[in-house]
Parts: sequence; C-alpha cells; structure tokens
Amino acid sequence: MVLHVTQSVEALEQYCATLRAAGLDAPWSRPGPLIEPKKTRVEPRLWRWAEIEPLLRRSAEFVTPERGAERRILRLANPGVPERTSTHTLSVAVQYLLPGEVAPAHRHTPNAIRFMMHGRGAYTTVDGDKCLMAPGDLVLTPSMTWHDHGNEGTEPVIWLDGLDSPIVRYLEALSGEPHAMDRQSTGYLAGLSERRFGVAGLRPTWVPPGTGPARLIHYRWEPTHAALLRLAELEPSPFDDVMMEYIDPATGRSVLPTMGCYIQMIRPGVRTRAHRQTSSAVYAVLQGSGTSVIDGVRYEWQQGDFFVVPPRALHAHANDDADPAILFSLQDVPLLTALGLYREEG
Amino acid sequence: MVLHVTQSVEALEQYCATLRAAGLDAPWSRPGPLIEPKKTRVEPRLWRWAEIEPLLRRSAEFVTPERGAERRILRLANPGVPERTSTHTLSVAVQYLLPGEVAPAHRHTPNAIRFMMHGRGAYTTVDGDKCLMAPGDLVLTPSMTWHDHGNEGTEPVIWLDGLDSPIVRYLEALSGEPHAMDRQSTGYLAGLSERRFGVAGLRPTWVPPGTGPARLIHYRWEPTHAALLRLAELEPSPFDDVMMEYIDPATGRSVLPTMGCYIQMIRPGVRTRAHRQTSSAVYAVLQGSGTSVIDGVRYEWQQGDFFVVPPRALHAHANDDADPAILFSLQDVPLLTALGLYREEG
Amino acid sequence: MVLHVTQSVEALEQYCATLRAAGLDAPWSRPGPLIEPKKTRVEPRLWRWAEIEPLLRRSAEFVTPERGAERRILRLANPGVPERTSTHTLSVAVQYLLPGEVAPAHRHTPNAIRFMMHGRGAYTTVDGDKCLMAPGDLVLTPSMTWHDHGNEGTEPVIWLDGLDSPIVRYLEALSGEPHAMDRQSTGYLAGLSERRFGVAGLRPTWVPPGTGPARLIHYRWEPTHAALLRLAELEPSPFDDVMMEYIDPATGRSVLPTMGCYIQMIRPGVRTRAHRQTSSAVYAVLQGSGTSVIDGVRYEWQQGDFFVVPPRALHAHANDDADPAILFSLQDVPLLTALGLYREEG
Amino acid sequence: MVLHVTQSVEALEQYCATLRAAGLDAPWSRPGPLIEPKKTRVEPRLWRWAEIEPLLRRSAEFVTPERGAERRILRLANPGVPERTSTHTLSVAVQYLLPGEVAPAHRHTPNAIRFMMHGRGAYTTVDGDKCLMAPGDLVLTPSMTWHDHGNEGTEPVIWLDGLDSPIVRYLEALSGEPHAMDRQSTGYLAGLSERRFGVAGLRPTWVPPGTGPARLIHYRWEPTHAALLRLAELEPSPFDDVMMEYIDPATGRSVLPTMGCYIQMIRPGVRTRAHRQTSSAVYAVLQGSGTSVIDGVRYEWQQGDFFVVPPRALHAHANDDADPAILFSLQDVPLLTALGLYREEG
Repeated sequence: MVLHVTQSVEALEQYCATLRAAGLDAPWSRPGPLIEPKKTRVEPRLWRWAEIEPLLRRSAEFVTPERGAERRILRLANPGVPERTSTHTLSVAVQYLLPGEVAPAHRHTPNAIRFMMHGRGAYTTVDGDKCLMAPGDLVLTPSMTWHDHGNEGTEPVIWLDGLDSPIVRYLEALSGEPHAMDRQSTGYLAGLSERRFGVAGLRPTWVPPGTGPARLIHYRWEPTHAALLRLAELEPSPFDDVMMEYIDPATGRSVLPTMGCYIQMIRPGVRTRAHRQTSSAVYAVLQGSGTSVIDGVRYEWQQGDFFVVPPRALHAHANDDADPAILFSLQDVPLLTALGLYREEG
Repeated sequence: MVLHVTQSVEALEQYCATLRAAGLDAPWSRPGPLIEPKKTRVEPRLWRWAEIEPLLRRSAEFVTPERGAERRILRLANPGVPERTSTHTLSVAVQYLLPGEVAPAHRHTPNAIRFMMHGRGAYTTVDGDKCLMAPGDLVLTPSMTWHDHGNEGTEPVIWLDGLDSPIVRYLEALSGEPHAMDRQSTGYLAGLSERRFGVAGLRPTWVPPGTGPARLIHYRWEPTHAALLRLAELEPSPFDDVMMEYIDPATGRSVLPTMGCYIQMIRPGVRTRAHRQTSSAVYAVLQGSGTSVIDGVRYEWQQGDFFVVPPRALHAHANDDADPAILFSLQDVPLLTALGLYREEG
Repeated sequence: MVLHVTQSVEALEQYCATLRAAGLDAPWSRPGPLIEPKKTRVEPRLWRWAEIEPLLRRSAEFVTPERGAERRILRLANPGVPERTSTHTLSVAVQYLLPGEVAPAHRHTPNAIRFMMHGRGAYTTVDGDKCLMAPGDLVLTPSMTWHDHGNEGTEPVIWLDGLDSPIVRYLEALSGEPHAMDRQSTGYLAGLSERRFGVAGLRPTWVPPGTGPARLIHYRWEPTHAALLRLAELEPSPFDDVMMEYIDPATGRSVLPTMGCYIQMIRPGVRTRAHRQTSSAVYAVLQGSGTSVIDGVRYEWQQGDFFVVPPRALHAHANDDADPAILFSLQDVPLLTALGLYREEG
Repeated sequence: MVLHVTQSVEALEQYCATLRAAGLDAPWSRPGPLIEPKKTRVEPRLWRWAEIEPLLRRSAEFVTPERGAERRILRLANPGVPERTSTHTLSVAVQYLLPGEVAPAHRHTPNAIRFMMHGRGAYTTVDGDKCLMAPGDLVLTPSMTWHDHGNEGTEPVIWLDGLDSPIVRYLEALSGEPHAMDRQSTGYLAGLSERRFGVAGLRPTWVPPGTGPARLIHYRWEPTHAALLRLAELEPSPFDDVMMEYIDPATGRSVLPTMGCYIQMIRPGVRTRAHRQTSSAVYAVLQGSGTSVIDGVRYEWQQGDFFVVPPRALHAHANDDADPAILFSLQDVPLLTALGLYREEG
C-alpha cells in the first residue's frame, strides 16, 4: 500500500466504499501484492490405512449406494482445502462395496479413475463395456462416460476413486445425470476396449480412436507389475526411482486431460534426490513401506497409506526396507502442462 | 442423504466427528449431490464508463505506480466471485497512467494482455521490445515476460488489463519478481516482434517461434478495424455477427493458453441468435451502443462500458443503432478447450 | 496437342529444338496431358514361396554377407518398376543367414523393418540394443540407426527386409556408412527398448521419446497373435477383416514416417468387400491360404507367398479354408498421408 | 560384388537369369552398393530471362490455352531430370496469357502455386474465389481445388507456375478433371479468402480452417515487400540474409504439404555463408542482380532469371550491387521434413 501523504485514511476508506458500490476494487488500497495469494494452501498430509479401514467398513452401517447416495465413499480431506478435497485439483476417496451391491449408473463432467485395492469380484461398466477389476487394476471413466459399479464376488471390495472434480467445480462446469437404469446393459463382449487397444504397439485399423470403449480404459495389474520389474533392472530416475506414467497407447498422451496416473517402485535401499514441481499429487502405497520428506517434514508410510505432496513442495522418497515399495499416484501434471504452468526443479 | 433407518442422527454425527479427526469426509452424510457445487457463481453484470471514469481519475490522488503499488488500477469486481475478480478465471481492470509516469518492470506467472482505450503516448516494453500503444492496440505480456509501462505523451492514458491471475492463483502457481530496473533497457529497434511476425502469412526462416519478441505481441488497431469492415461484407455468424479471434500467426493458436482475445462488430440492425458456452467472458464496448440479454436480463451498453457473460449463460446481442457497435472481449475458451470442458450450444 | 492452323509441323519442330537448347520444354507440343504420366506402373504380382525358397538357399553358394556384399538378400522385383523394387516406394526382400554368420553393422538414411519368418537364434542389434528375433517378430531399424544381424542358432534363418529405399533414392537422399566394427557392442541389458516401452499404456517418466532404444523397436509375435485372436471375436472391418496397424505406443503414430506395418487375419469363410487406396502394399502370407482379386485378376496364395497391391487397384480377399489366414503387410500409407495424397474408396 | 571363389561367373549368370524369371533380384550380384543410386541427378542450372522471354512470346504463335492444351507454358527442364521438370520434385514453368484469353477451369491432385511476374489484369479463380493478381502476388491452388485463369487487362501477362507434379507423378497419384465450364462462376465477393484470413493474427471465429477460400490463398506483394524491408533492419540469417517463408496464418504451417514458398532479400554488399540442405530449390530473381556459387560453380543472375539448387549442393549468394536483390523460391522442404529426411548443414 503506497498512499500519497496528502491523503487521509478516512478519504481512502470513503473512496473505497464508493468503489465497492460501483463494483470496483482497488487492490493497491490493501497491504500486500496486487494479486492476493490464497488464504489456505494445499498441505502435505499422511492418512493411515489402519485408521481409514475400520471407518470405511463402519460406513456400511450408515449408507447404501443407491440413488441419491450413489457412492459409499470416504474422501481424503486436505486440511488446506476448504472444500475438503485431497488437493485443490484432485479428489481422492476410498469406495466400499458389499457383495451383491451396485453403485448405480450415472455420468458427469468430471473425469474419474478407479484403482482397485482390496477384494475380487467387482466390475465397472464404462459406456457398456464391463471391466472386471482385480487388485492393482486401473479403470478410467472419462468425462461424461456412463459408469456403474457392482460387486459380484463374495467379499467386500475397496477401491480408490480419483476425480478432477475440484477444478471442474472451480470452473463452474459441474454437471451430470443419472442413467435410466441402475446397471447399464452390456450388449457386447466384456473387455471391448482392451481387446482393441490393450496390446502395446497395435491398433485396429477400422476403429477411429475416441472415448468410451474406443480407447483403452482398463489397465491391468499383472503387465504393469511386470513392466515395473523389468524397468527396475535399468538405470532409473534419480528423483523418482522406477516410475512409469499410464498413457493412452493410441496417442501417447496422459490418460486424461487434467490428471495423470503413475506407478512407481522405490527399490530396497534407494533414497531419491529431492525435487519440486508446480503440480500436486496424491500417493497410495500399494506395497512395502518407506519414508518421504516433504518440505522438511518426515512421513513414514506403509501399505495402504495415502499421502499428499502439495505444489512446489520439495520432496524425496526413501526405502530402507529389504522389499520394494510400490506407489500409485494421481497428479495434475497434464492440467498444468496444458496451461503452460508446469515447472520442475531438481 | 440416504441413511439406514436403524441408525440415529446422533450416531451419524459422532461417526462424522471421528472422520473429521482422521482427515476424512463422507459427502453422503450431507444433503445434496456427492460433488457439492460452488456456493457463489459468476454473475452477469454491467459496469458503466460514466461511473468508472471519474473514480479512475480520482485514483491518482491516492496512489502512484511505483514499487510496492506497482500499478494504478481499478478492477471489475464480480459480485459472484469472493476474490473480487471479474470472473472466476479472468481479472479485468482499467489502468491509469499520467504523463511522465512509469509502471515499473516486473514479471509473473499469470499471463496478461493490454488493450489501449484512451490517450496517446503510452508504451509497454515486453522482454526488451518497446511497443507504442495507440487506442485499439492489443499488447500481450505472456507468463514470465518482463514488462513495464510508461506514458511519454502529454495526456493521461487509460487501458484495459486482462489477466488469468484468478486461475493461476487457484492453482497455487502465483509467483513473480521485480526487475532490477524500473524501465527495461531496449537494446534493439522498437517493434522487433512486429517486424518479424506482423504480416499475415510470412515468417522469418531463421527465428524459431517462441516467447517474448520471438512471437507476435503487438496487434494494431488499424488493420484490425479494416479486417472487421472487410469481413462485415460477408455472411457473418448468426450468434456473434462479425467476430474474429486474435491468434498467434506463427501457430494459428489462441494468443495465450488460458485466455482468448476477440474483436467483434454488431452491425446496425442486427439481433444475434442466443447461445451459451461453458466459458466466461468480459466484454468492453469500444464503439457504439447496443443491448445484450443475458439469462433473460437485459443490459444496455454504451461506449466504454464493460459487461460479463458467466459460464452457461444464454446470451444474445442487438444493435438498434445506425452505427456499428464494436466489442473487445477476453474469454477463457482456450483454458476450457485444453481441459476438454468447452461446450457450446445454440 | 492443339496447334494453330497457321503453323507448320516443321516450324514447331524447329521451335522445340530451340527450346531444348535453352533448357526449356513445351509439354503442349506433344500429344497427351500437360503432366505426362509414368510410362510404367506398379503391377500386381504374386511370388510363390515354393519358387523363392530354393533360390534363396542357393544364394549361399554365391555370396557371403561380409563387407561389400553386406546382406545376402533376394529382392521381390516388380515388373512395373524399372529399378527392380517391389513397388515404387517399397523394397521388400528375403534375407538368408547361416549359423554363425554376421551381417555387418551399418546405417543409412532409408528406414527399414525386419519381419522374422523361419528359424531361431537370429538377432538384430539396433543402436546397441540386441533384439533376439523369434518367428513373427517385427524389428524396426529407423533411418540412420546402426544395425547388424547375426545368427547364433544352429539352423539357417530367413526374414523379410522392408525398406523405403525407393522413395529415399528418388528424393536423392540416399546416404549411409559402415560401422567401425562388424558387430556393435551392446553395453547394456538386451531388450532395452522393450523394457521401456513394451507394455501398452505405460511409459517411463524420465526417458524422453526418441529414436533407437528410446522408442519401441521390437514387436513380438506372441502378444500380436493373441491380440488378433481377441480382436477376431469382435465386429471386424468389411474391407480387411481383422486388421491391426503396428504403432509407436509412445505417440500413437505409424511406426515409420514413410511406411506402415500391418498384421491381418482373414477368418475362415470370410470374403471381404473390395476397396482401393492411393497407397501400395506388399503382403506376406504368414499362415493359411486364400485368394485375392486385384483389379479383376485372381491370385491364390499360400503360406510363404508374397503379393503386391498397386496404388488404386481394387482388391478383395477371401479365405475358403477351415483355418484362419494371417497376412503381414508393408504399406506406404504414412507417406501418402503426410503429403495429403492418401485416399480410400470402398 | 563379393563372390565365392568356388563359383564361376557363368554359374552366377545362370542363377541370375533364373532369379529374373522368378521376379527376383540379387543386388549383390552387381558391383556397387546394395541400394543403387539414381543414374541421373538434379543439376544446378541457370536460365536467363533474356533467352526465355522471346521464346515465351513466340509460343503464342503455336498454341492457345483452350481445352486440350489447357495452359500456354514453357517449363524449366533440368538436364539431370529425365522427365524434363525443374527438379525431381518441383515443376516450374512460365505461363503466358494474352488479353482476353482464358486458361480453362480444371483441377488435379498436384498442388500448384502462381507467382505473378509481368503485366496487370490477370486473375486466378480458386474454388469460386476470384483473385486479381498484381506483379509479386502469390496465389495457391492446393490439390484438387478448381482453378481457371484469365487476362482481363490490355497487355500480355506472364507468371510463374510451380507444381509438385513430379513427386505426385512418381507416386502414381496423378489424377484430374476439367470443369464443366471454362470459367467458374464466382457467386460471392472477390477476395473471400483474403477477407477472412488476410490479416496477421486474426481469424473469423465461425469459419473452420480448411481448403479453398476457407484458408488464405492470395498473398499480396505490397505487404510482403514491406515486411522484407522492415525485417532487413534487423539481424538477418548468415546463410540466407533476409528470408521469409510464406505460411498459412491459420496454422503456422508451410503453405502446402510438399512445397514451401520463400521470399528473400540479399542486401547490397552481402555475401552469405555457404550451407547445404537435402531439399531442392528453384529460385526466381524478382529484382536486382547477384551471384550464387553452387557446388563450386559461379552463376551470375539478373532480374527475370531462374536457377536451381540441387539436394545437398553447397551454395552461397552474393550481392555486389548497390541495390537489394530479391529472390522468390519454391523448395521441397515440407516434403522432406514430413518424411524425416530434411537435413541442413552450414
């Protein structure tokens, strides 16, 4: 605030009141920079599976995933995000579905991904393509694709839901609708998307790449794990150790325009070098245990835990165990890249 | 909210308190959709030049654009945006600079544009390239380009500042710094960018397209106006009448990754058909007068006025005058397009 | 030829002689269109394996793949191509390598592919990455990558070589050089390219896509065959039945800028609809037998045979057998597409 | 040729005869490299206007541009190109049209450009858009656009025709057809393309970029010349002095997929550094005079002359005059770039 000495504070206050009435604002009349930063910022945080799991199982006592409730989820709420999402751009939740239950079909503008964590027998149907989800499988439900989930197994299932709803909401672009039926009919062979696009380096000549089953939506754990192991024998990244991004094999691009999905192995004994990015990330620990130092604070994590790395937070990972640690993460790198705002420094 | 009948409200409240303590959130425990929409939304609004101008001139009694204050601006504050910017993604302000004054050199992550409105003799220097701004000229200062402004004329000047700072701020990507000098030195011929890229369909072979003066940053009024007039003799758009987007002639893309700039003529007697888009827009009336109906409300505008069209607001324009009306607008179409969220319906 | 009646043929001939002396040409002085078409055109043709194989085995009596000879190959020579290549853009040959032999390392501007046909134990090393080639494997050696081949097995091996040398030659862009060593040293783990890029939908985050082992160069038969079988259960193309293009999974593009590689199954009992394209193709029959009608002429093919489909030739395939027929083909679709000349009509 | 000592020349000859009968070829049976280079190569050459012009004017005694003859042209025939075109990829001719004459409407797969050299009053109509061509104007007729020319002035006109017909012909992709009428009707305002796309950095919002009048097809001399002069005051290229490429301002790409158009000023006293490229070029001298050294041979050129720079030919230009020299050139850079074959070394 740089005021002329000839003016009184009262005159300025009166002037500002006139401005307000006219729908105008003089940012120089307040202390601080012309562009005022956010009052709250995404914070680093760790969520323990030991704490989440019993609460998630208890949720079944309160809610059923039928129309209205739609999904039985618990969201990772970042203390620095007033809207109670995991970061300002990413909403990560755990979803719990009992044998025989169906989470009814709907669609919405936010993009979503599912990463299967516990239990067998669950499926997600995406625009009529039914994908059976084994632990470690990733299934995409891009913006405005119809999707319903069901548990046809004999045990409860738990998966991770990741959405870009915070940014879609901020952009006032939220919309959606229920499907006429709870379960979409699946008029063709299951795994249509995977049959067409599931092999590296091959593409049907007569199916133009598109959305829904006209692109790869189901990424299975077995080849992913095998790829990590094979890659682990080569020279890895000093910052991330052995890290792969899930991509659309028909275009080479990130799986969604706003969110990238990553799978990462921190090999036994590895301590990565610290780096920082303008993007934010939510990590899920799939296997093993380790430590991350985020902006100087040490977080020890184990299988099932989640943690957040905020934008520009310096972070490094370490695995002092004898077994590899495997992390899945959801990051808003594609969003920042598209807007020319992605930066990385090591 | 779909609760099991067997559960009491108290049990749920206790459960939710435990969740909160664990950093978890159960969106189904509250009424409303799983993804809660924003509490406030961008609103349509008109600002009258008759009201803005005297307040802007008075601002010189309170502030000088030196270090600290940096810029003598009044921002268009949307009543639906808590952060007092013009929309949730666009910050539009009017800037006022007296003869001899300099707004000192700095740079920042938000992209910005300047559109000259009143007075002659002002310049913006962008990464060392000094652009003299006549009324109607558009000058770009892309993310992290150094820029300072000065008034070398004999009358006060007023221009429009447009920034994507609201979205950069939301993404926690705000950063910037002052230049060591108030005025950048300009080590080469003025108008470098324009000499290289200012003619349609020609590009120097040995200058790779890039930022700063390695791209077109100065778009002059005279050829813009002439282009509008020539285009006005052809079949125009039913929704926008005669409308052109400013583009980077070296790539054909919108001038900035987040914001598009548009120039538009509503010819005498024209009433456009209504349409809606998921993008938001701030319009400045350069010439003439007319009427816009935005979500059923009628706004009459004259030269110098500004108005906002919010996302998904149905809008149509009319010009019942004998003279053409000319509108400049700043819209977040590139941002929504990059994220796959742009939709338009007529 | 449209001559003025007032001119004699002699005057024209004299005039044309003067033109020739001046390095000028008057195309209107000759009958026919202003742009004279080629005198010879690519012709459809079938080569029988029964005829090729004994000649190929006899070639070992005449030549050894050492420096100077470089490769023991027999090229499919199209009767309509004066340069004795398979089409005007594609050069397809069969290569024969005895146990213990090495085809020495070199590199050249033409792009090449290898498709393994008979025998085990052969490898191709591409920029230091050693790829063991089993029957049905495809290995790429893009423009200017070093490559040598060797047979470390106990039986002779035969593979298909496909090059874009005819077009590179026409463009006067042929160049190449021998490597200092006959066999490149392989300083790292075999299969580097495949470890990095060999799984659909995953990409190492720290390896920028590029050439040599920084892209997928080895496409194995087993997953290719499995993909064909899975795809065969879906609705196929009416023109090509079950057909996939090999693509670069890091970009979704054809494997080479000039040539596309395709794998195709004509299921038992299928008769495809006829279509024509501006591209040319060389087909190799991997399994089964069938019939192709090309511009009205019927070609019956069996395992090991090759046939050419010229540009704009109407063609359809049929399989009247009880077993599927599998065809590999090399086509210049990417070349024609890049130049805006690809057309297809069904 | 590396033959086994145990084999006689006769045995090899007999073997090769058998191969020929089987449609096979053994390139190792002949001396020289496996991939035989072309027997003729594009040669550097200069054509003098003093020699061309009288021959061109005489051509009117022999031919009229009516159906059948279509165009009264003289082609620059390169001694190294058997097909008598200017290079292996570019066909450049001069066209001569008398007052009142019409060169009737047709279309064809080759792309073409016109560059106006002498006389006023001529037009080219492209897909119904009539472009009046003043000296120095460039008009595009992309692949398969209808085009007719006429001379509505009082003096003969001469322009340069540039086509990619040699490469389209080599690719066996030549096709074309006459229009039902000699002159296309022009149902709308002349200069449609220019009204829409003729101003740098502006694009109509409701016209999707495409072909014909949905892209810029007319590039005028006046702004081109002014752009050269403005650019000449900046630091130029050491290899080409002041050189600009004509581009499509809606995409930033070269004007055609196979051919690029360039305008270039060699300022008085400038001697450029030598460089070589894999592309070929045909230059037309628009103004002034100078010297080019191409692969060691010196060519002195004056206004109206043409010269060819072959692929990989080292070349440098010099202007020892007091006035600037201006060159227009047509080059196959986009073609070679699209195929990954473009290289440049200085």
